[in-house]
Amino acid sequence: MKLNQFARLTTTYSEQIKALQRIKLLDEGYEALSVQALAQQIFARFFPEAHSKTAQNEQMQKIQATASLNLADYLAGISTSFDQRTFYNIALQLLGFKVTTDFQFNHPRRFMAKVGIPYVDQPVLTQELFLEAVYLLLTTRSQNGLLYLDCLANRGFFAHWQKATAPEFLIFNGKTQPVFDTQNFIREVVYVESSLDTDLDGHLDLLETTIFRPKETEKGLRVPALYTASPYYKGTNDVDADLHNVDVPIQAKAAIQPNLADLKTGTNQSVPAAREPLGETTEPELEAADDSNYLLNDYFLARGFATVYAGGIGTRGSDGMRTCGSPEETASTTAIIEWLAGNRRAYTNKTDRIEIKAWWCNQKVAMTGKSYLGTLATAAATTGVEGLKTVIAEAAISSWYDYYRENGLVVAPVDCQGEDADVLAKLCQTRQMDAADHTKSGALFEEQLAALREGQDRITGNYNAFWAERNYRDNVQKINCDVVLVHGLNDWNVKLQNAGALWDDLRQLPIEKKLFLHQGQHIYMNNIQSIDFTDMMNLWLSYQLLDIDNHASEILPTVTIQDNTQEATWHTQDDWLNPKNPRQTYFLNDPEHLGLDQTPTTPVADFSDDGVAMFKKQHLSEAAWQDQLLAPQSDFTQNRLLLLSQAQSKQLVIDGRVQLKTKVAVNTDRGLLSVMLVDYGLFSRLGTTPAILAAKGQQLGYHWRYDDLKEFKLGALSPYQLITKGHLNLQNRHNSYQTETVDAGTFYEVQLDLQPTHYHLAAGHQLGLVIYATDMEMTLREEQQNQYQVDLGASRLVIPTLD
Amino acid sequence: MKLNQFARLTTTYSEQIKALQRIKLLDEGYEALSVQALAQQIFARFFPEAHSKTAQNEQMQKIQATASLNLADYLAGISTSFDQRTFYNIALQLLGFKVTTDFQFNHPRRFMAKVGIPYVDQPVLTQELFLEAVYLLLTTRSQNGLLYLDCLANRGFFAHWQKATAPEFLIFNGKTQPVFDTQNFIREVVYVESSLDTDLDGHLDLLETTIFRPKETEKGLRVPALYTASPYYKGTNDVDADLHNVDVPIQAKAAIQPNLADLKTGTNQSVPAAREPLGETTEPELEAADDSNYLLNDYFLARGFATVYAGGIGTRGSDGMRTCGSPEETASTTAIIEWLAGNRRAYTNKTDRIEIKAWWCNQKVAMTGKSYLGTLATAAATTGVEGLKTVIAEAAISSWYDYYRENGLVVAPVDCQGEDADVLAKLCQTRQMDAADHTKSGALFEEQLAALREGQDRITGNYNAFWAERNYRDNVQKINCDVVLVHGLNDWNVKLQNAGALWDDLRQLPIEKKLFLHQGQHIYMNNIQSIDFTDMMNLWLSYQLLDIDNHASEILPTVTIQDNTQEATWHTQDDWLNPKNPRQTYFLNDPEHLGLDQTPTTPVADFSDDGVAMFKKQHLSEAAWQDQLLAPQSDFTQNRLLLLSQAQSKQLVIDGRVQLKTKVAVNTDRGLLSVMLVDYGLFSRLGTTPAILAAKGQQLGYHWRYDDLKEFKLGALSPYQLITKGHLNLQNRHNSYQTETVDAGTFYEVQLDLQPTHYHLAAGHQLGLVIYATDMEMTLREEQQNQYQVDLGASRLVIPTLD
Repeated sequence: MKLNQFARLTTTYSEQIKALQRIKLLDEGYEALSVQALAQQIFARFFPEAHSKTAQNEQMQKIQATASLNLADYLAGISTSFDQRTFYNIALQLLGFKVTTDFQFNHPRRFMAKVGIPYVDQPVLTQELFLEAVYLLLTTRSQNGLLYLDCLANRGFFAHWQKATAPEFLIFNGKTQPVFDTQNFIREVVYVESSLDTDLDGHLDLLETTIFRPKETEKGLRVPALYTASPYYKGTNDVDADLHNVDVPIQAKAAIQPNLADLKTGTNQSVPAAREPLGETTEPELEAADDSNYLLNDYFLARGFATVYAGGIGTRGSDGMRTCGSPEETASTTAIIEWLAGNRRAYTNKTDRIEIKAWWCNQKVAMTGKSYLGTLATAAATTGVEGLKTVIAEAAISSWYDYYRENGLVVAPVDCQGEDADVLAKLCQTRQMDAADHTKSGALFEEQLAALREGQDRITGNYNAFWAERNYRDNVQKINCDVVLVHGLNDWNVKLQNAGALWDDLRQLPIEKKLFLHQGQHIYMNNIQSIDFTDMMNLWLSYQLLDIDNHASEILPTVTIQDNTQEATWHTQDDWLNPKNPRQTYFLNDPEHLGLDQTPTTPVADFSDDGVAMFKKQHLSEAAWQDQLLAPQSDFTQNRLLLLSQAQSKQLVIDGRVQLKTKVAVNTDRGLLSVMLVDYGLFSRLGTTPAILAAKGQQLGYHWRYDDLKEFKLGALSPYQLITKGHLNLQNRHNSYQTETVDAGTFYEVQLDLQPTHYHLAAGHQLGLVIYATDMEMTLREEQQNQYQVDLGASRLVIPTLD
Repeated sequence: MKLNQFARLTTTYSEQIKALQRIKLLDEGYEALSVQALAQQIFARFFPEAHSKTAQNEQMQKIQATASLNLADYLAGISTSFDQRTFYNIALQLLGFKVTTDFQFNHPRRFMAKVGIPYVDQPVLTQELFLEAVYLLLTTRSQNGLLYLDCLANRGFFAHWQKATAPEFLIFNGKTQPVFDTQNFIREVVYVESSLDTDLDGHLDLLETTIFRPKETEKGLRVPALYTASPYYKGTNDVDADLHNVDVPIQAKAAIQPNLADLKTGTNQSVPAAREPLGETTEPELEAADDSNYLLNDYFLARGFATVYAGGIGTRGSDGMRTCGSPEETASTTAIIEWLAGNRRAYTNKTDRIEIKAWWCNQKVAMTGKSYLGTLATAAATTGVEGLKTVIAEAAISSWYDYYRENGLVVAPVDCQGEDADVLAKLCQTRQMDAADHTKSGALFEEQLAALREGQDRITGNYNAFWAERNYRDNVQKINCDVVLVHGLNDWNVKLQNAGALWDDLRQLPIEKKLFLHQGQHIYMNNIQSIDFTDMMNLWLSYQLLDIDNHASEILPTVTIQDNTQEATWHTQDDWLNPKNPRQTYFLNDPEHLGLDQTPTTPVADFSDDGVAMFKKQHLSEAAWQDQLLAPQSDFTQNRLLLLSQAQSKQLVIDGRVQLKTKVAVNTDRGLLSVMLVDYGLFSRLGTTPAILAAKGQQLGYHWRYDDLKEFKLGALSPYQLITKGHLNLQNRHNSYQTETVDAGTFYEVQLDLQPTHYHLAAGHQLGLVIYATDMEMTLREEQQNQYQVDLGASRLVIPTLD
């Protein structure tokens, strides 16, 4: 167990005193008090649930201070100073650690050093050192991952703040505190008028927007908005019947050489005039019936931020048509920000034209969310929309081509075989859940779907105008807000190129940018015990949206990466995928570096791509097929080349895009190359799904919601772990939009960049390179018998590393 | 999908009108209104989140009423009657069903009949029929399993009730409604003084008790209490290191013949005098820092019931010592009820002797909870304590011998190998989490543990005074409250003998009793879509604790059993395990009925009990071992006899205790017999873990908590399903407390009752009988090579059935 902490501010003693007074832990005139009197007062206040002296005393009697004295008795005997060892015996118990089970009594610092808990390193705590230690304790992470002050808040420490007549934000250690009334939020719905008419009904599309805001706004407080654009907010349609058949051939394509610039198309659809308001009100007419759905947002709701949810065009309650990643979707996303920032109208309902302003908002907005939600945050950032101060984009798509395609191939996100832009559009066209709305808009949406199907082009898999329109990175220069990216290094749904290519673009921009790479798959990271992500976001958003001068930009590392070889270990770096990272070159079939599992008689090795029939016959899951493909010997051995290094004599830290340069031939006029880089060897590895340490282990505020406490744990011995993979259509040897012919039996030079990654290959492990064609998990999978040849002598594997 | 419903009351039209007026859906003078005016008013009120006419109208515009009209437009055109088909087109949409996806538009009744949704069967709805249909709709279960009125409540239908100056319970269709303020519950802690001094400190043990009660109690309302006695409420200790080694021999025992009556011991420990109160208050001093932990309780909290949690002696915050199932634990459980009923003192803290009464309570108490929690409810019921009106005991232990032992054997609950009464006591002695409290009480608890270890006697496995003291069924005659039992037919943690033997005892008692048997393992059943368990409990508790004359006893079936062959199917019966159920006798080795997998050369078949070494060598999970033992051929084939019937020509419904009468010999002086009855054949079977249909799919009240919506689903084809099993020490051939010797090679007559069950063996399935010895999941497992012989010719399998 380690409690890494990045979001603690180091402050001066006088600032600490002011802060302790601000939270009313310390009274005026404290200087005159003895350490005894001070300690009695402060420890009593550490039990806000106890409303009498006796009740406080009884709580203190449960804490062991010294071998013979409990906290209450110990306090009765001290005078001008506090023994440091005793203080930390007590502090660890307050933080939720158990004597004997967690730490050895009277040896608190040994445990604290191991876990990463800070302490005041002086044997005797005089008044000043005692107060320093108290301040440090409040900003220390407890067993459940929450700061101790948050634990106190969850038990009512700030309860009396809710009665303030002139409520305001309370800042402690640079972060906004949960002093707001969590039991009486205002929940309301408004309709933001966009500048779109995507359902062609002659009226600008109105977008249903749900707001949760502190009741304190009714007393004059103006608050920032955390906005999550979620097409899933009102539910999703069942699209099982709409998935594309993937058991079809990859077709031979005609050679074409378009210019990238020509792919851009401008849409200059004329739109109706905006509605003319007939009145204005501050009172909405519709109460929110749906609830919030991201617990990080709820954490901030308790800390004074409004949270805002909108699904955008085509979703239930809104007008318009869903078009999966289109500029119209982006515009319907930013419309909400424009309203929050005072630059666009909203109405109380769709009929009466009574305007309602976001009068409660300080006009500063951040966006949050994962996957499609994070994608729309990225999309909004690339418009430069006014009011958007920062985005926290988690597992976000930055170009839809990189979600559904790769190098001229149809390549599905993991576990989503057959999904495509049209399917996702239908999944999210939730207007049709309301039957009468479906009657109005269903026929036009079918037309839209046909257009999406044509545009996405599953035949060639090429990058084209449709995908260019859905490449947010083309507009990266417009980004003027600060950006936080979060991605799982084992995310094979939204693949890492989405974060990697965006990061490459952001590197040059004059904005603040932060990156977090965890070891998970397609998940949020706000409830992981070993890292204070939530606190970091509090520091970040207090800085961005509340204008707190807390040095968030300097304090938060630029790049924070979770280590894959040990639990609870996070490294910081200045960059990721830095082009200057040194390269190591591996020759294939060189026994010193990467050999073949059986020595070939010639430097050319071959494999047959005939595994589909067996895959279907055995009714294998896609994951089970991958296990077999990577096994030393299986029914699929002939479908791949496996090249293995010797066990590494020292560790290798991969950081960047691994590149395979090779020459390959196929015995027909079309083909594909798939490559996996694999960590081999029977070792215990970190799980890619965090375990639940405590269900509902983290409360997000006083009388407020709970999140589960989770951590990535080392698992049982496993034979391998995928490091990264990549796919390429042999007809797209140079890029994804231009195609060349393939002649049977001809060797073609190919350079394939695998998905960007960061991977710590420990000493003793073996590096494995697996070359194959059909990927049951991701590519189309025709039953065929194609034969591939790879010129190993002409092949190189180039690995970017950290020194 | 089926929405079974048992808790709907049939009422007269005039009662329905009164009820509709009571909930303010219908106004005075409604008779004068046209159907049009009435329908416009009522449908508008079905959108309580819409606070203006326009907003209501816009919600109605989303509902398709006829092929060409939405609800708003349709209402504009009707006059004196409502078309029935149109009404149900609308009603299904209101209930959350989707046109096309769920039901065919204009054919609502076809869907309703299939799913089990009631309707008014008249083509034209005049005023009276329309209001009947509205009443019926409100009491109809929606797609998420909630009654439609509950769905309305979740969206604010009862919001204005919270402002009442003289709050009271609102009853609709016999059930209490969520009209209480869910955002401002009172959360408090008191210390109930027991009549025990189990920690021998010279003071009666004080028991920490946490209460959540509606704020409306502060305005004079007196409410009942739902009390959950949970030793886990304050967390649990880690006892991994305390588990007993199970890889040890079953030892040969001396023959003993004690009388059952002699096992009873009376404890007449003298206890200190009660504290003398020094004052009294209505204001507690300690606020609850922990939260509620059973969502069924939270459902009732929103409906006006207080919820009360206490861990009992030895748990964190309380005095005393944990002794796993002892009479002292029972007394510490009932102490809380006595306080709630006004018959015992509680104090605001442990020091000042300021008494606090349960002044807010109507002195009526029900107990809820699963596993240990339900066990303590059963324990309390067997005391006849005043104030306890009913218990809802789910998966509850009724005799601790039936939890940790079976017929003279140490037999662990599934997945709990090595656990025993001492381990569970230590798990729950959570006082020791508070280090200073541990310092005070730790040494004495170690003594207690030693006494538990001696009493539980893992050497003989016999029923003795220790277990007799922990057999609640010995006191069943004292039960004077009504009882609801709930148990999973696939629960191998708390085995079904616990429910079965208690049910046998309850059958004769002059109380109301209800039994629910679901297809789950060790789980709650309150959030299963196919059954309205929560509504039934509402009807039950409104009757028991609010004195509502709702005929709950007559309306609720006595026995409700989930079918194991199809989804969402629940049968009702008058009894379970009825001794009069007809018996079918199967001869072993008769090819017409139960043959052996290979024909034996003599009527005596043998098997060797030497599987432990292989089990360990292969590092098998216990479940994987069972799969192999039951397979036609495996590494464990020689460890069991498998007798298989022909495929059943017609269905067989087993209800009772299957009994194996046999003659068995072993080649040493000790041994055991294990038997499984198994349903064989490659079929799709119902899963024993319900799938989540919708995470947070059921909201429990307005602005209140959520439960997941779940259902048991048919799974992929599987080769077998365990029906029931049993174990017996050959030295306990006649009962669990008397032992006889075993001579090597001698055949002994044995009658083994397997765990009671109810199982639907469909036609085409085969019945399998598996006879073996060591059960890796449950028994001790010495590495040995014992040989067993079974006289098949002298064996009979007797199966109780339903006609």
